[in-house]
Amino acid sequence: MFESAEIDHVIDKATFDAEEQVLREALLEAQYALREQSRHAVIILINGIEGAGKGETVKLLNEWMDPRLIQVSTFDQQTDEELARPAAWRYWRQLPPKGRIGIFFGNWYSQMLQGRVHGDLKKDQLNGAIEGALGLEQMLCNEGTLIFKFWFHLSKKQMLKRLETLKDDPLHSWRLSPLDWQQSKTYDKFVRAGEDVLRRTSRDYAPWYIVAGADANYRSLTVGRILLEGLQAALRNSAERAPLPHTTPLMTRTDERSLLDSLNMGVHLAKADYREQLVQEQARLAQLMRDKRMRRHALVAVFEGNDAAGKGGAIRRVAAALDPRQYRIVPVAAPTEEERAQPYLWRFWRHIPARGKFTVFDRSWYGRVLVERVEGFCAPEDWLRAYGEINDFEEQLSNAGVVLVKFWLAIDEKTQLQRFRERENNPVKRFKITEEDWRNREKWPLYREAVGDMVDRTSTRLAPWTLVEANDKQFARVKVLRTINDALEAAFEKARH
Amino acid sequence: MFESAEIDHVIDKATFDAEEQVLREALLEAQYALREQSRHAVIILINGIEGAGKGETVKLLNEWMDPRLIQVSTFDQQTDEELARPAAWRYWRQLPPKGRIGIFFGNWYSQMLQGRVHGDLKKDQLNGAIEGALGLEQMLCNEGTLIFKFWFHLSKKQMLKRLETLKDDPLHSWRLSPLDWQQSKTYDKFVRAGEDVLRRTSRDYAPWYIVAGADANYRSLTVGRILLEGLQAALRNSAERAPLPHTTPLMTRTDERSLLDSLNMGVHLAKADYREQLVQEQARLAQLMRDKRMRRHALVAVFEGNDAAGKGGAIRRVAAALDPRQYRIVPVAAPTEEERAQPYLWRFWRHIPARGKFTVFDRSWYGRVLVERVEGFCAPEDWLRAYGEINDFEEQLSNAGVVLVKFWLAIDEKTQLQRFRERENNPVKRFKITEEDWRNREKWPLYREAVGDMVDRTSTRLAPWTLVEANDKQFARVKVLRTINDALEAAFEKARH
Repeated sequence: MFESAEIDHVIDKATFDAEEQVLREALLEAQYALREQSRHAVIILINGIEGAGKGETVKLLNEWMDPRLIQVSTFDQQTDEELARPAAWRYWRQLPPKGRIGIFFGNWYSQMLQGRVHGDLKKDQLNGAIEGALGLEQMLCNEGTLIFKFWFHLSKKQMLKRLETLKDDPLHSWRLSPLDWQQSKTYDKFVRAGEDVLRRTSRDYAPWYIVAGADANYRSLTVGRILLEGLQAALRNSAERAPLPHTTPLMTRTDERSLLDSLNMGVHLAKADYREQLVQEQARLAQLMRDKRMRRHALVAVFEGNDAAGKGGAIRRVAAALDPRQYRIVPVAAPTEEERAQPYLWRFWRHIPARGKFTVFDRSWYGRVLVERVEGFCAPEDWLRAYGEINDFEEQLSNAGVVLVKFWLAIDEKTQLQRFRERENNPVKRFKITEEDWRNREKWPLYREAVGDMVDRTSTRLAPWTLVEANDKQFARVKVLRTINDALEAAFEKARH
Repeated sequence: MFESAEIDHVIDKATFDAEEQVLREALLEAQYALREQSRHAVIILINGIEGAGKGETVKLLNEWMDPRLIQVSTFDQQTDEELARPAAWRYWRQLPPKGRIGIFFGNWYSQMLQGRVHGDLKKDQLNGAIEGALGLEQMLCNEGTLIFKFWFHLSKKQMLKRLETLKDDPLHSWRLSPLDWQQSKTYDKFVRAGEDVLRRTSRDYAPWYIVAGADANYRSLTVGRILLEGLQAALRNSAERAPLPHTTPLMTRTDERSLLDSLNMGVHLAKADYREQLVQEQARLAQLMRDKRMRRHALVAVFEGNDAAGKGGAIRRVAAALDPRQYRIVPVAAPTEEERAQPYLWRFWRHIPARGKFTVFDRSWYGRVLVERVEGFCAPEDWLRAYGEINDFEEQLSNAGVVLVKFWLAIDEKTQLQRFRERENNPVKRFKITEEDWRNREKWPLYREAVGDMVDRTSTRLAPWTLVEANDKQFARVKVLRTINDALEAAFEKARH
């Protein structure tokens, strides 16, 4: 979930200065239109890691826009007046009216996270808090409020580096607060709890936006653009009272660096190494599947990837390790008539393996947010709500002991072209390449964006995505097998504790 | 919540026979149209009290409609296959396809209720179960499924009477199952848990319908009509893909008996008794408000009622008992400009009393489901979702120690006319009667229906409605004061345990 925010994003000063000017004007204009129209209030929730630029961004938003139409509320210690009333009262009294923007610095999510980190909020109590938060947000959205939820992120390394740099700098060490030091100790717990809460509270009507916080230029432009696009979309829809206020793209690409670009596509495995490692990992898988601890788990592997990325070959190498009675491969193509008569997750639920068993999905429920999104096979509101539905689905699997591994096999455009040509010239493989593959290829940028959103929104601790560099098929196959084995071992280990 | 279902509803055989014929044909027609259109699946959840006609109704629905297009699923013990998979798998595999009806006899709610009654589901765990159920239902609705949730009800008295009658009847005692006897012992717990779960899971997209189960004719017609109207509304909306599949009226009135009719409007309090009891209850209130246990509570009293029912007079008698620093009266009229710029609950949240204090709302948030509904000041989807939002709101108050009493002051049409005339002829009171009052009077049946739905949907253990027979003002005033006092005392008592 935080993967995209942990790769380096940097915007240089010249670019920033140029873009800032345009953004400011547009934001100001949107802000006045918002006031003019007076149909929507805006709430901006600020959460995330200390030092990731939360305060600076709020300051900046007030500089960029008309601060008279913005109210910033902080919710630290409850006042006497607040303590004497129901917990939500403090939020209600600070709600911005229609036409205005309210920035909630420290909010219901901060309280959940503090509670989880310090252990005074039990897991089951968290359910109640989440139910309450979603109820409140859904009601506010139904009443016309636009909710932007920002998580400012730093990787652990970035966070530690910041502390190191600042602490010895007499001019800047005052910037470090006790909170910074406290958080450096609880970082892992905090991020873990954050991921859990974000996964369960990112809904189509009020999605989370995760912002890489290390570079000030990058994060400022990112927040500004998300806000701008969200406001503009709402203003457009408002006249017709469209059902969904949030039609903003899920992730604004402030720079051109996505998770997929951060892969080293040059990795390569020599033939001899491949043979040795493949046999080794296959043996390991065979053993793990026969382990008696497997009786308490099931295994699900999802294969997605570019056309001609080698999914089929990778799946065959996995299957080769196993007794056919242990696994089942489910190839996912266009739904059958029976499947079309059901909710889209139905055709995957029916193939969920029993404990002790293994199902390989050759393409999967992610079709909803990939091909169906890109090709327009479903409406935007349908794929927008799918991220939350899929996370719920996978949480249910995980809670029942299913070990879930998800692979995106990535190749670059050049490699794909090469493979397409090879297939066309090979009489045995010719059937594998169709007109549709060539058409899909033209939509490369759209798929790239969809894959980015998918990974950002559905890669979770319970069910992480593994991006596989697949220009070299041998490397890819070994990585796939090793990832499955590592996941099984980790699950066995965890169950022991 | 169960109040309406606990008054006697009886449909005689002749009426039933006549109506049944019409209903059957219409249901069958709707069923075929559903199959033809093939855009919606229907799920009917069957829950409630043993002996309230659950099985009989399911049997009847299969007789009335084409049983080939209905699949009945029971979910008792999990099978081996089910135990080996995530808990929801058993429901997914039984989902009806589009165009069909699935009846789920024993379902996710039965499991929650059993768990609560037998104590193996903790209160916090219930939150997780409810979150899961609502997530599933919302997703299904988004995918085009119509969900009807029926709770078949018997009052405790009705339930015990049934057991008594059947047990000594050699011809019918076989009808009693071990479940019946078990439930007779856990009735209170079961109904309490039921109310809690129903309150929290009745949503606009999948509301609960509570059906009085004692009379077979009544309950059969009621279920049949709700189903019919729901199906017809969905079929109508389906072409235009309207956002809300459930546009069926909340409560089908199978007979003309509503809760309001069950009031004995002839009750009367003699002047001497009134004076004595009034002083007594006022003294009691003054004392309770000064009780040190009041420091942990706040008090909110909501006054709604027919025009000229005497709300003002009753409120004055309450206030007369108190020090003005202890209470505050909030008269609710049309919202101010500031209030219109906020979610509709905002203007009530701002007046929520601090602990130790008392707020009287002269009209309240129930305007949303009364005047706004009847006059069309808000869209149907807005007041339909309000029941759930109001229940959430009141639950938050209650959890924070607020004691909530809600009064509906009821007079009959004749009495209202009389009072209107008196007001017109009285120079001092003349300002109290306007054109609008006369117009409202013409909408008496619409208000009557809205009041019925309001009480059915929002009278809960946490925040019960008290219907006050107000033809006699003196009786009404004493009943109001006594109800407040009893509620405070009960809260103090409860807090002690």
